[in-house]
Amino acid sequence: MPKQKLKMGMVGGGPGALIGQVHRKAAQLDEDVELISGVFSSDPKKSADMGADLHLDPKRVYCSLDDMLKNESAKSNEERLDFISIVTPNFAHFEPVLKSLEQGFNVMCDKPLAFSLQEALEIAQAVKKSGKVFGLSHNYSGYPMVKQARHLIRSGALGKVIKIHVEYPQGWLLKKADSAQAAWRKDPKKAGISCCVGDIGTHCHHLAAYITGLKLESVCADLSSFGANAAPLDDDASILLRYEGGAKGTLCSSQVEVGGENPLAISVHGTEGRLWWRQEIPMRLFVQPIGKPVEIQTPGNDYLCEAAKRATRLPAGHPEAFYEAFANIYRNFCDSIRAIKEGRKPSELESDFPTAQDGVKGMAFIKAAIENGWDDKTKWTKIEYF
Amino acid sequence: MPKQKLKMGMVGGGPGALIGQVHRKAAQLDEDVELISGVFSSDPKKSADMGADLHLDPKRVYCSLDDMLKNESAKSNEERLDFISIVTPNFAHFEPVLKSLEQGFNVMCDKPLAFSLQEALEIAQAVKKSGKVFGLSHNYSGYPMVKQARHLIRSGALGKVIKIHVEYPQGWLLKKADSAQAAWRKDPKKAGISCCVGDIGTHCHHLAAYITGLKLESVCADLSSFGANAAPLDDDASILLRYEGGAKGTLCSSQVEVGGENPLAISVHGTEGRLWWRQEIPMRLFVQPIGKPVEIQTPGNDYLCEAAKRATRLPAGHPEAFYEAFANIYRNFCDSIRAIKEGRKPSELESDFPTAQDGVKGMAFIKAAIENGWDDKTKWTKIEYF
Amino acid sequence: MPKQKLKMGMVGGGPGALIGQVHRKAAQLDEDVELISGVFSSDPKKSADMGADLHLDPKRVYCSLDDMLKNESAKSNEERLDFISIVTPNFAHFEPVLKSLEQGFNVMCDKPLAFSLQEALEIAQAVKKSGKVFGLSHNYSGYPMVKQARHLIRSGALGKVIKIHVEYPQGWLLKKADSAQAAWRKDPKKAGISCCVGDIGTHCHHLAAYITGLKLESVCADLSSFGANAAPLDDDASILLRYEGGAKGTLCSSQVEVGGENPLAISVHGTEGRLWWRQEIPMRLFVQPIGKPVEIQTPGNDYLCEAAKRATRLPAGHPEAFYEAFANIYRNFCDSIRAIKEGRKPSELESDFPTAQDGVKGMAFIKAAIENGWDDKTKWTKIEYF
Amino acid sequence: MPKQKLKMGMVGGGPGALIGQVHRKAAQLDEDVELISGVFSSDPKKSADMGADLHLDPKRVYCSLDDMLKNESAKSNEERLDFISIVTPNFAHFEPVLKSLEQGFNVMCDKPLAFSLQEALEIAQAVKKSGKVFGLSHNYSGYPMVKQARHLIRSGALGKVIKIHVEYPQGWLLKKADSAQAAWRKDPKKAGISCCVGDIGTHCHHLAAYITGLKLESVCADLSSFGANAAPLDDDASILLRYEGGAKGTLCSSQVEVGGENPLAISVHGTEGRLWWRQEIPMRLFVQPIGKPVEIQTPGNDYLCEAAKRATRLPAGHPEAFYEAFANIYRNFCDSIRAIKEGRKPSELESDFPTAQDGVKGMAFIKAAIENGWDDKTKWTKIEYF
Repeated sequence: MPKQKLKMGMVGGGPGALIGQVHRKAAQLDEDVELISGVFSSDPKKSADMGADLHLDPKRVYCSLDDMLKNESAKSNEERLDFISIVTPNFAHFEPVLKSLEQGFNVMCDKPLAFSLQEALEIAQAVKKSGKVFGLSHNYSGYPMVKQARHLIRSGALGKVIKIHVEYPQGWLLKKADSAQAAWRKDPKKAGISCCVGDIGTHCHHLAAYITGLKLESVCADLSSFGANAAPLDDDASILLRYEGGAKGTLCSSQVEVGGENPLAISVHGTEGRLWWRQEIPMRLFVQPIGKPVEIQTPGNDYLCEAAKRATRLPAGHPEAFYEAFANIYRNFCDSIRAIKEGRKPSELESDFPTAQDGVKGMAFIKAAIENGWDDKTKWTKIEYF
Repeated sequence: MPKQKLKMGMVGGGPGALIGQVHRKAAQLDEDVELISGVFSSDPKKSADMGADLHLDPKRVYCSLDDMLKNESAKSNEERLDFISIVTPNFAHFEPVLKSLEQGFNVMCDKPLAFSLQEALEIAQAVKKSGKVFGLSHNYSGYPMVKQARHLIRSGALGKVIKIHVEYPQGWLLKKADSAQAAWRKDPKKAGISCCVGDIGTHCHHLAAYITGLKLESVCADLSSFGANAAPLDDDASILLRYEGGAKGTLCSSQVEVGGENPLAISVHGTEGRLWWRQEIPMRLFVQPIGKPVEIQTPGNDYLCEAAKRATRLPAGHPEAFYEAFANIYRNFCDSIRAIKEGRKPSELESDFPTAQDGVKGMAFIKAAIENGWDDKTKWTKIEYF
Repeated sequence: MPKQKLKMGMVGGGPGALIGQVHRKAAQLDEDVELISGVFSSDPKKSADMGADLHLDPKRVYCSLDDMLKNESAKSNEERLDFISIVTPNFAHFEPVLKSLEQGFNVMCDKPLAFSLQEALEIAQAVKKSGKVFGLSHNYSGYPMVKQARHLIRSGALGKVIKIHVEYPQGWLLKKADSAQAAWRKDPKKAGISCCVGDIGTHCHHLAAYITGLKLESVCADLSSFGANAAPLDDDASILLRYEGGAKGTLCSSQVEVGGENPLAISVHGTEGRLWWRQEIPMRLFVQPIGKPVEIQTPGNDYLCEAAKRATRLPAGHPEAFYEAFANIYRNFCDSIRAIKEGRKPSELESDFPTAQDGVKGMAFIKAAIENGWDDKTKWTKIEYF
Repeated sequence: MPKQKLKMGMVGGGPGALIGQVHRKAAQLDEDVELISGVFSSDPKKSADMGADLHLDPKRVYCSLDDMLKNESAKSNEERLDFISIVTPNFAHFEPVLKSLEQGFNVMCDKPLAFSLQEALEIAQAVKKSGKVFGLSHNYSGYPMVKQARHLIRSGALGKVIKIHVEYPQGWLLKKADSAQAAWRKDPKKAGISCCVGDIGTHCHHLAAYITGLKLESVCADLSSFGANAAPLDDDASILLRYEGGAKGTLCSSQVEVGGENPLAISVHGTEGRLWWRQEIPMRLFVQPIGKPVEIQTPGNDYLCEAAKRATRLPAGHPEAFYEAFANIYRNFCDSIRAIKEGRKPSELESDFPTAQDGVKGMAFIKAAIENGWDDKTKWTKIEYF
């Protein structure tokens, strides 16, 4: 009897939704997962059409979360979904995450975790209580060279970290201030307290934490809203950082800096060297030990750590990119699910994906940055991690 | 009744085979194809194990091509395979390609097309006679910026082409001369008349032809065999090129030049400007009109041609790479199959993938380059295209 | 009677002094200036040896500023120095600058202008009163592509400026905390109130002002002293910027970030596009109008502005670098001196070099950044420009 | 009594001449050479004007080589020229070089050495007979990272060299086929047997020889004349190379490939690794030992060889470029002259500049490449080095 693919359900990701498509391709890239069910829209026709486009059995395509959970949780072990991916906008994470966990499904959730820190804390508690596997798609931590950066920093190869610069400049909101995406992202009822920091600043925050393991202690921020329709939410943020243990840094995210190939970039400076990485050329990690030449480390080579080696599917010199990095989050998430199905504890390598705890930290960062950033009097705001 | 995924069969691609995995992931990336059947090995256990790993129905996993074709061709229209991918080494293309066509299957074949020019010509005839859709996986032509390069050159944006440089340096054969892959690649019984030119020189040849549309007329080559176990086949080739209409160029391929991220690269020089592209940073096309700044063109932008726009799945600034380019070959191949199923002629965009004719040209190039390259007396050898 | 070279005197720049050598080579590169006299050291032997190394007439080599000024100002018009370059450390600028101006000499002064804002203001007044030509060696504004950046921004080609990021990371102080240079740079009696901000942060400040013409209004800074011998002065600064008119930005300078080829870098973001420049590849300016490809503009091309064209000595494609950029400051400074000798007002192109006013602004910036940066309570400090 | 600057004379380099200016600035950059005399043109007014522009004593400015040599050779030891730089076009090197040597002057000559191999051989003999110091301005060998490349290859760090690719693409002749420079460069009476190979192919040839020390044995070339006014001389060359000992390679030079920042580039592949260098970013040498990351080596670092260290004037991270590399040729040439004046043999480091022997090799290469390149029958032509 053949090994079975893991069965995936999806909430959100209707026609035209970018991130739903990404989750589906990423999850299924390694030929070990199959999309089986979904509630792609609350509009019955839209959801059904999407299901048909995806070649799903119409009986397992829904237009209501409750229907989906009710029907799917009633399936036999053989047919039951192994996990549900929640790819709705962040204001609509809370309910499906909690209900899915309650029904005993493992959950992958798009980032940021929730609408507010309060919601995030409740989710984290629910995850803990459920004992289910929960993943958060901070996809940039899936790149193999980010994993190698993490390895180098955490193994002390570059000494004690003293400085971190991380940036994520985008420009789309400058000119598309009237687009549908702009509409909800700059609407506090849907986006919550932040637009730019919540959407991409949080990627910066997670990336720095993932690589260095350092806890961000306090922030000093300057927020702006440059976009054409001067909305109440931030579309640009420059933030000074202070980490536990004395490291410092900057975090700049913007939706009004024209151009670039989503050049999320990080540099980490230690007492014995530095490294830097940019998503524009994601397969290269630049490493410079003090007094030595810069090295360009690349995937597929013997000198890499296990987590980095595990994160490529092709031999050295065959570029992988966004989908493959995203798929690495799913691979480890799925391997953890399989491990538990097999009755064993997931290994450290299998557990290497963002969790609800990371999501809580991200929400705490957003809250502190937004509070501080619109206030010209308070220089430093501590991050409350609970 | 939901739209069905295309049903894929595979010949070759057993445990550990790189290119089989690539074909499978590439074919299925767009959620429109499903692997259903395969003969992954002539060893029954190996083939069965591979099928199990891939979660296939064991009844549709075979250890003999003839069994597979017999059983699969007997299926109902509903269940019948839409195409078969042949991913065996090139000495084992001929028979499965011909038999699959005979049984009425569309075929995707790994490159180079065949073991010899003679075989290639017979395949091309068989394709013509069959009326089936036939694709050849010269995957580098699947990159969006390669398609944009083709558009710029063919639309005359850079004037008349006068020079072409194309190179594909690899280094693996220098140190792994005793590996399994080295063994068959340097064995004339398996690799045919060439190792390096046949494996990667042919990618260079195709890429230049794809972008410029120019017909290569004659070659002047210098071949070498530098690898540790001085084998009779080339592992390095430097070739001067003369094209119909007066353009000239160079083609350098090597398996003994250490390092690099598979930096297949091409530059095309016209009377009004130049462009260049490198696989190491595949999402960037460098274009320089005479007297103006170099432009860096990137995917997802309004200024690109339709073929380039169609060849990405993500918005501007999200890098795609090797798998996605390979998937673009499959996407157009599959769209052509669907078009024919729907009773219409595939559009020009849908027909944009390498064919058996391209494969014949590649084999003719290999033949001329090898004949000339070991001969110190004959300066120029004409390519016979038949 | 041949046109005469301008006659140059030097204060400072003794054996082993880097910046003195740079000023001499830069001044004389264009074959229109000749070093004639100097007080290279207060140690008679050292000054004499240096003069001999430079092939000077020993009678015009001194070990006291007063002797030099007394003797040299007594020379005939024919023999008289046209200008004096002050290349001592910044704590020793004030006296030689003032005395040289008093004796009627034009003056080029190394940056930063002075030891304190107060000194800088007095120098600026003295320059104004003297009517002499005064230059300040903010050499990075001498690069041709920096001049092109200035042209593009100031001509409005990229719309209204909304964001500026400028950074100057160095790492030498991390490991050479006990070097001679470290000793004086981290000694408040010699370096003044700042080490890092004063030495290189001020280059960032000037570069941003030079390119954009925007007035920096207030700063929010975080300073550190990471260097081995925890000295009282900053060796690292991260600064948030607010400009008149609403533009914002960041300025990061560090002497404890390992490595890099002095990668002073600036990016300027407008409502219609962005540009960026890095000293590591100084001959390239990257420009991206909204929705169009990135352009790489390079020297020697017809599309450049006059100031950029004037700032290269070689045809397109011949790289120039640090010395040549520094020489461009001297070229314009010297052309202004010649213009006045010829009885005419220097043109705008000839006047394109940093002045005492720029120096005052730099000192005001340093003062504000240092005051704010060690204070965890005050978020924003206004810059007082007087 | 102060150490004296070396006294320089110049033949050629009149108003507007690029290369004369470069020689003057390069020679004088290190403050140890002074231009004293010149015959800048055979037109008395032009020569005098140029001398005046350069602030020379009019008595030492001539309009006839014979007058210059006669007057200057009659000067006292104190006043006598130390060397003469010949910067005329290559058809006018022979006579001034020979006469200058005869009069006992050391000589720096612009490249290529002469109009023909025959002339070059006579010059080399004359140099030998004279015992004078003779330099040839193959300036690209003056770059510090080229010297480091030479060191790495010659010390065996990358194993036995098996492949060399060198290229020098330019595009100016495509569109400026009617310029003054095009006129003489494509006129066989002035340029000799070659335009492109003679002007820039010879730089490629020298660079490869300088770095590897390998002797080029034979060439197989394809020449073209693409330029608008289809002239009899080559403006494009693609050449296959075979070196003594079995290394192979390609040499591509062109004057009809649009654009680029004079991107002379070389890659050298050994059995243990590879390196590459490009003039576009001249301060970086890329080195990749087999199986390890690419290293970016840069000037001013402890890990460099002595010759590379000696070839920069600034600390690590301050870019130097074309003039400084050219000045490095002069520095070693002048140090050799000083050594001999001091009665000692120049050291190996001081002798590190191109010689008449290098010039002869270059002319032999040109002769073989041109003979072979227009001949479609002869595949390989041996280079006769005499």
